[in-house]
Amino acid sequence: MWPDSDSASAKLYARAEQVEPGGINRLQTWQEPFPVYAASGAGAYVTDVDGVRRLDLANNFASLMHGHAHPAITAAVTEQIARGSCFILPTESEIFLAELLCARVEGFERVRFCNTGTEAVMIALKAARARTGRPKIAKLEGAYHGMYDFAEISLDSGPETWGNVPRSVPYTQGVPKGVIEDTVVIPYNDTDAAARILRGQGPEIAGILIDPVSLSCGMIPLEQNFIDMVQAVAAETGALVIFDEVVTFRLGPQGAQGLYGAKPDLTTLGKIVGGGFPVAAIAGHAEAMGVFDHRAGKPLNPSSGTFTANPVGMTAGRIALELMTEAEYARMDALGERARAGLRAAMDEAGYPGQVAGLGSMFRIHTSARPMKTYRDTFPTPAEAEATTKLQRDLLLAGFITTTKGCFISTPTTEADIDAFVEAAKGCFAKLATAA
Amino acid sequence: MWPDSDSASAKLYARAEQVEPGGINRLQTWQEPFPVYAASGAGAYVTDVDGVRRLDLANNFASLMHGHAHPAITAAVTEQIARGSCFILPTESEIFLAELLCARVEGFERVRFCNTGTEAVMIALKAARARTGRPKIAKLEGAYHGMYDFAEISLDSGPETWGNVPRSVPYTQGVPKGVIEDTVVIPYNDTDAAARILRGQGPEIAGILIDPVSLSCGMIPLEQNFIDMVQAVAAETGALVIFDEVVTFRLGPQGAQGLYGAKPDLTTLGKIVGGGFPVAAIAGHAEAMGVFDHRAGKPLNPSSGTFTANPVGMTAGRIALELMTEAEYARMDALGERARAGLRAAMDEAGYPGQVAGLGSMFRIHTSARPMKTYRDTFPTPAEAEATTKLQRDLLLAGFITTTKGCFISTPTTEADIDAFVEAAKGCFAKLATAA
Repeated sequence: MWPDSDSASAKLYARAEQVEPGGINRLQTWQEPFPVYAASGAGAYVTDVDGVRRLDLANNFASLMHGHAHPAITAAVTEQIARGSCFILPTESEIFLAELLCARVEGFERVRFCNTGTEAVMIALKAARARTGRPKIAKLEGAYHGMYDFAEISLDSGPETWGNVPRSVPYTQGVPKGVIEDTVVIPYNDTDAAARILRGQGPEIAGILIDPVSLSCGMIPLEQNFIDMVQAVAAETGALVIFDEVVTFRLGPQGAQGLYGAKPDLTTLGKIVGGGFPVAAIAGHAEAMGVFDHRAGKPLNPSSGTFTANPVGMTAGRIALELMTEAEYARMDALGERARAGLRAAMDEAGYPGQVAGLGSMFRIHTSARPMKTYRDTFPTPAEAEATTKLQRDLLLAGFITTTKGCFISTPTTEADIDAFVEAAKGCFAKLATAA
Repeated sequence: MWPDSDSASAKLYARAEQVEPGGINRLQTWQEPFPVYAASGAGAYVTDVDGVRRLDLANNFASLMHGHAHPAITAAVTEQIARGSCFILPTESEIFLAELLCARVEGFERVRFCNTGTEAVMIALKAARARTGRPKIAKLEGAYHGMYDFAEISLDSGPETWGNVPRSVPYTQGVPKGVIEDTVVIPYNDTDAAARILRGQGPEIAGILIDPVSLSCGMIPLEQNFIDMVQAVAAETGALVIFDEVVTFRLGPQGAQGLYGAKPDLTTLGKIVGGGFPVAAIAGHAEAMGVFDHRAGKPLNPSSGTFTANPVGMTAGRIALELMTEAEYARMDALGERARAGLRAAMDEAGYPGQVAGLGSMFRIHTSARPMKTYRDTFPTPAEAEATTKLQRDLLLAGFITTTKGCFISTPTTEADIDAFVEAAKGCFAKLATAA
């Protein structure tokens, strides 16, 4: 079994190295010395190609709200595929999912679908520029928003690049100067400094893109006053407020914006809204979404796409959301709280000085007890990063799939599953405490 | 039935207008006075929500090589979905599809998957910049490459913006100046002028992006000497050659590059490689693809994505390509030729002065007899554009789904289907000839 050199995963990786750069397709799947390959999933569990079964707390990076192969989603999608997986013509399925989203979230009057979170963010930023005629986008230092290069700026900027005021630091090599100059970076959860920057460049800023609970900022929620400031400054300066809720829409029927009582102009969605299939969306009020409207001639932002609103993803997404009743969100919140409280108690018992962040069905173990509010607070020392990697690996060996950026509970997960995870984590914390 | 105001499509569109900008999700689905909504597809035919069955020659804009609900693809995908639709762990399915692509195309040594053609082009352009450290991208005037704003420049530039030398003309409103300045536009099929521009800006150009048979340039193939020039100039200047074969990979086992004997550094793929599911890819030689490799630290171009290489799309894509044997490509070429020859004869018989472009399983009806070589040659007059729209609509009413940019034949299509289409087209040509 993994990580043995004669495991089925080892053999697959040897083949993968011959046809994939580095032998992988996604950085998140990397694992020293080679990845574990999945064979199948059922509910909260995944079985790998060597027959090892593990509790899945990654759920494809927060996208599987209902775990693997949920019977209702599988049945509906199977039936749809027998009738066709995509068409050049629209289908009723896109209307049903859009109606459901608009019914749930007050600020959603119109929805435009696409296929990935990366596309949703790109389309939303282009929409903000199209609507305002302004070139610049403001984003949070440290926040991840997919692969569009403007949105990638300062995603992983480290202490060596930090000044008092965040600079635009490219993530990919070879980013053109214009991309760097047209992205304004604001500090995560530093309300006064962010307000100064946003006001200073106000007339040039088309949109302010924020993730209310950024995974790459330690899963520390933005404070209410930060969110309020963003909305107030945007109202002053004429910028659009864009919430990236690709991850956080799992936090409640109205996503994170419901928790904050916020009303962004545009919201990007993904992950759970596709029920395990590649679906993403931009939603917002009718005026802001008007940039996509073709009825008065060429739209200000013509957006399209071959697999946009395909009925497989639309059907899976609708069912995944319908299953998320108010009661189910409450049950998931309680399971998340059980995990967070359990992990905190386990750290205490193990004498390990870490901390646990997160809310709702999301939690994140930090290998540092340092108070955390900003991205910079959450930026790990090399020793902390190493401990996080070791913890993730030890948990994998113990039978639990997690990520170094956080865990995401699915609905088939039981209290007993969470308790078993907490117990295993306690053992891992004890090992880390001894090593430290 | 459509376009009646009491049709099922009319009722769906009335709902769609309440939740989608303009009541649609994709510009390509628009149809006056409202779209036809699909209910199901089987083989080469689609049945709409009013029960009307039509021959599908759009095949979701070239992505359905095997038409709708091909039994082998449906069976394999259904089985995969019962075992899970996506995982944070990799699966063997991504290796199988990558191995198949590398075995077929000489220049493919490594493959990186993503979910849409838009993403593939964006990732490839970022890869070219990362590898060369240069900021600029060269692209063909008029060519469509998805929604990444750099790749959208001069996609639909009209005569009012044409100078002798193509300018960078934004497609979406509010495109930042840097995007315009960092995109170098070269004229489609004007070898000398394109070479001068590429050599003139040589040291700044990271990659030259070309579509060998651009649908938005009238489906007129690039000439061999243009392709040869691009490769020669790239070798001189150190730019990467990027073929966008999202559409043209359906032309043969090695795509269009096989037909030209070309060896681009990077190729973008999509449409048929996903077997009807959202799959796209970047393929190329190992050195160029090295920008994605994580094994020596952070990759020059870290690319990832939640639904990248998900086993549903990987499985469907592999089977779709396996079904495309040499004999099957030859059969599709013959069907395409039957359509093109039939349409030309039909135009003659109807006395309609149009022309038919295309190759392999793709064809395009032009409502002009003007000789066509460049994008500008193919740019329609208002009367020609109106005739194209009318033709597409008349064909739809006659029972044939086409697009104004071209038609794409699927493998379940028969000679009798093609003949029936040609016969219907003849009637439409006669009507156009009378109207003109």
